[in-house]
Amino acid sequence: MLKNDVQNEKDYRDITIDKVGVKNINYPIIVEDRTNTIQHTIANIDIFVELTKDFRGTHMSRFLEVLNSYHQETLIDNLESFLKDIKTTLGSNSSYIKLQFPYFVNKKAPVSRIESLLNYQCEFEASLKEKFDFVIGVSVPITALCPCSKEISEYGAHNQRSIVTLKVRYQDFIWLDELIEYVESSASCEVYSLLKRVDEKYVTEKAYENPVFVEDIVREIALKMRNDNRITWFSVESENFESIHNHSAYAFVEQHTK
Amino acid sequence: MLKNDVQNEKDYRDITIDKVGVKNINYPIIVEDRTNTIQHTIANIDIFVELTKDFRGTHMSRFLEVLNSYHQETLIDNLESFLKDIKTTLGSNSSYIKLQFPYFVNKKAPVSRIESLLNYQCEFEASLKEKFDFVIGVSVPITALCPCSKEISEYGAHNQRSIVTLKVRYQDFIWLDELIEYVESSASCEVYSLLKRVDEKYVTEKAYENPVFVEDIVREIALKMRNDNRITWFSVESENFESIHNHSAYAFVEQHTK
Amino acid sequence: MLKNDVQNEKDYRDITIDKVGVKNINYPIIVEDRTNTIQHTIANIDIFVELTKDFRGTHMSRFLEVLNSYHQETLIDNLESFLKDIKTTLGSNSSYIKLQFPYFVNKKAPVSRIESLLNYQCEFEASLKEKFDFVIGVSVPITALCPCSKEISEYGAHNQRSIVTLKVRYQDFIWLDELIEYVESSASCEVYSLLKRVDEKYVTEKAYENPVFVEDIVREIALKMRNDNRITWFSVESENFESIHNHSAYAFVEQHTK
Amino acid sequence: MLKNDVQNEKDYRDITIDKVGVKNINYPIIVEDRTNTIQHTIANIDIFVELTKDFRGTHMSRFLEVLNSYHQETLIDNLESFLKDIKTTLGSNSSYIKLQFPYFVNKKAPVSRIESLLNYQCEFEASLKEKFDFVIGVSVPITALCPCSKEISEYGAHNQRSIVTLKVRYQDFIWLDELIEYVESSASCEVYSLLKRVDEKYVTEKAYENPVFVEDIVREIALKMRNDNRITWFSVESENFESIHNHSAYAFVEQHTK
Repeated sequence: MLKNDVQNEKDYRDITIDKVGVKNINYPIIVEDRTNTIQHTIANIDIFVELTKDFRGTHMSRFLEVLNSYHQETLIDNLESFLKDIKTTLGSNSSYIKLQFPYFVNKKAPVSRIESLLNYQCEFEASLKEKFDFVIGVSVPITALCPCSKEISEYGAHNQRSIVTLKVRYQDFIWLDELIEYVESSASCEVYSLLKRVDEKYVTEKAYENPVFVEDIVREIALKMRNDNRITWFSVESENFESIHNHSAYAFVEQHTK
Repeated sequence: MLKNDVQNEKDYRDITIDKVGVKNINYPIIVEDRTNTIQHTIANIDIFVELTKDFRGTHMSRFLEVLNSYHQETLIDNLESFLKDIKTTLGSNSSYIKLQFPYFVNKKAPVSRIESLLNYQCEFEASLKEKFDFVIGVSVPITALCPCSKEISEYGAHNQRSIVTLKVRYQDFIWLDELIEYVESSASCEVYSLLKRVDEKYVTEKAYENPVFVEDIVREIALKMRNDNRITWFSVESENFESIHNHSAYAFVEQHTK
Repeated sequence: MLKNDVQNEKDYRDITIDKVGVKNINYPIIVEDRTNTIQHTIANIDIFVELTKDFRGTHMSRFLEVLNSYHQETLIDNLESFLKDIKTTLGSNSSYIKLQFPYFVNKKAPVSRIESLLNYQCEFEASLKEKFDFVIGVSVPITALCPCSKEISEYGAHNQRSIVTLKVRYQDFIWLDELIEYVESSASCEVYSLLKRVDEKYVTEKAYENPVFVEDIVREIALKMRNDNRITWFSVESENFESIHNHSAYAFVEQHTK
Repeated sequence: MLKNDVQNEKDYRDITIDKVGVKNINYPIIVEDRTNTIQHTIANIDIFVELTKDFRGTHMSRFLEVLNSYHQETLIDNLESFLKDIKTTLGSNSSYIKLQFPYFVNKKAPVSRIESLLNYQCEFEASLKEKFDFVIGVSVPITALCPCSKEISEYGAHNQRSIVTLKVRYQDFIWLDELIEYVESSASCEVYSLLKRVDEKYVTEKAYENPVFVEDIVREIALKMRNDNRITWFSVESENFESIHNHSAYAFVEQHTK
């Protein structure tokens, strides 16, 4: 008995689907690493295409076939080529990929200089229509110490871990590590996996000397984005997991800078 | 010793903050319920304002004070008034709220007519600048049975739970329950908390008789949105947690319909 | 055509199933509230029975039927009766239920006395074999300020939000509110949803005056459990979301006290 | 000014802390791989020790120092030595580690034989008191097709993705891959990342030919555990994300087999 290729049926509903594809694929990838050339990590991946109004369905298995063919490639270098292959293979006008992955940086403690690895959740988001669009992002844990709490209190000041997410479009290459440094230098203090006593004294005092509101964090980073000529667009948000509340303080800024 | 109101300090960095405020507040709310007039539920709430470039910080405690003053109100009826109060109290040009909450509907099993409660994750998202903007959304669990699997197999067809998220803007009032029905009538079959044997036979056969791709689900809903004159904009996405894969199939459509 | 009741088939594999049933049901419930008599909330519920080695399957729909029959009951008062009904209806020797739900307490800010609601994630876990066993638990957000950081630093001290989970078995009734107070009084400071300037000064200074390690938190609570004659068993854990690291500090103690 | 080592203070509360240490560390690790000798992956790690009643605190930074010294080691081979070092370095009578990580297996589609990677969440949990205790576990996504739905319906049968978690203690080495195979061979069908049309037909029909209740899944695996002489203890649970409900069906068995 002959079976129809149901996905290939003509569709008469006159509705183009903006994005259709596969979501939440776990997959080992290779990313560029400023210190070690490359880094092996594991991504959570979504891949979509636009589906023209004329066809009933897309071919889900082809997304995986193209992904498998890029298994040994450094993805940040090859995303445009990957998206071209997706467009061709799926017969679509536009293709889209999002990858989220942990990225590890070997950090030296501020006084003892002992090294330890810190994980940063990172993201590449790329699309290809007529033009290629590419956004890279980092989520950076930092310490934020409250200026108001310091000002009004005889001693101490509440502080907490915050997660700052910075995303950029650029016209010249920029490392994930550089985005991380832009965020960390805008905090009350950066965080580390391993701190000895001398280091803990240092980070405690440094945070107390550098109080920042959630508003200050995003504004300081925004200034740095404006001053980096490679950046053409950015968004930055900070979520401060307040140590005196059971909710977060939050701020968000998005700007085109070129 | 006189303490400064640090938030009120003048800011010279020339950066307007798009959104600043409180995030991830758990709070009991009252929503309108088509069957029972009102329903008590518990929301996860974000509330933000725009912060003009002239001030260093916003006053986080005032968000909670305004929220507390609306504690006994039916929120869907009062969101514009709430956002006006936020603007006034925080001295801002624009205010924003997002509420996510479970909403329960008492459903009758299709054959036995036994009743049980099903939970739907819902969302209100509203902002007030010069004009008031309001989006309501529902996330609806459904059964999706694969047309390709049915077509090519001698017997059986893989099927799975999908979550369909439908968001709309409207010009005349629409119940959450109506959005839920639009989604459920576009599925292979709707889901229930309690099914007896006669019901399980019914839903199994109904799903087999109504195979839908993830693409079909969003297109069928899109057609209904176009045909409902109250709707002015919608977005719909379906994530199918494939029973034959460890990832999801996904489709998304967004359209202005007026 | 006659259909078999497949669940009722005899099983020959000689394997008793410890727990079988339904998991992750969202359901509105009523719990007792020390201040307001009752509180409506929404629970995530698991209900299981033991399945003797003689039968192939259990009847999943009956769990929901029994749950529905308790819809209007205050659950903490009726869990033993509920579990008896589950045993009878499912024909089992043992039954089990776990409910997790947010519980709201109206707290007064420490200086301004302004009121606001704080949410605590709570848990009831009950089983009925020959005897009824019942555990109640609360997860309480608190502020923890590090004694080492305070001691070694010229000024300031890192502090963070911690979540302390306390579970108890008791021989005389104890309110969730009492467990919450045992935890909050063992912290550097308790947290609030709404704090004015005078309150923020108070909580900042109080936390600085009461530094506690994660070890101190669980030990202080353990002492209180030993001194409360109603308590027969407890477990307490604290997870401190360190503001200077991207990981948590953690401690756990479990003891029979009678 | 001389600063005290606050953690080293004598404690008089007479409470031994069962577990104290660091939680939720993200860290790249190396695990043994049956096919490729080794596999690089990323773990979420907790490391604890017992803290005797005589001391106020443990030294959190030392956990990281020991972890860093094992950075290039294949962890499954070296966990006992790791836990010895933790005991020595922290001066404790007992130490504990838990690692959770994705593990990738290259699977061939059942008919086309096309290869693709599937991810399995795995776990090592080890403790060292007088004796070394070691548990390995795998979480395996599978297809489960309902025997009752098949029996009572004229055509079709509801099926869904399930996650089966199998943990074992063993007296002779066993691969993670072997545990995965024990689970997959007990399902209606195994799942794959990449399936062509011929494969989709195969898995659809295979699942329809092999209906299993959640109870059958755990019992079939339990039988295999009893028959593998290397296994001394196991626990197995299956959570079926029902395609006809918004909740899960669940079963759990735990047994000593030696």
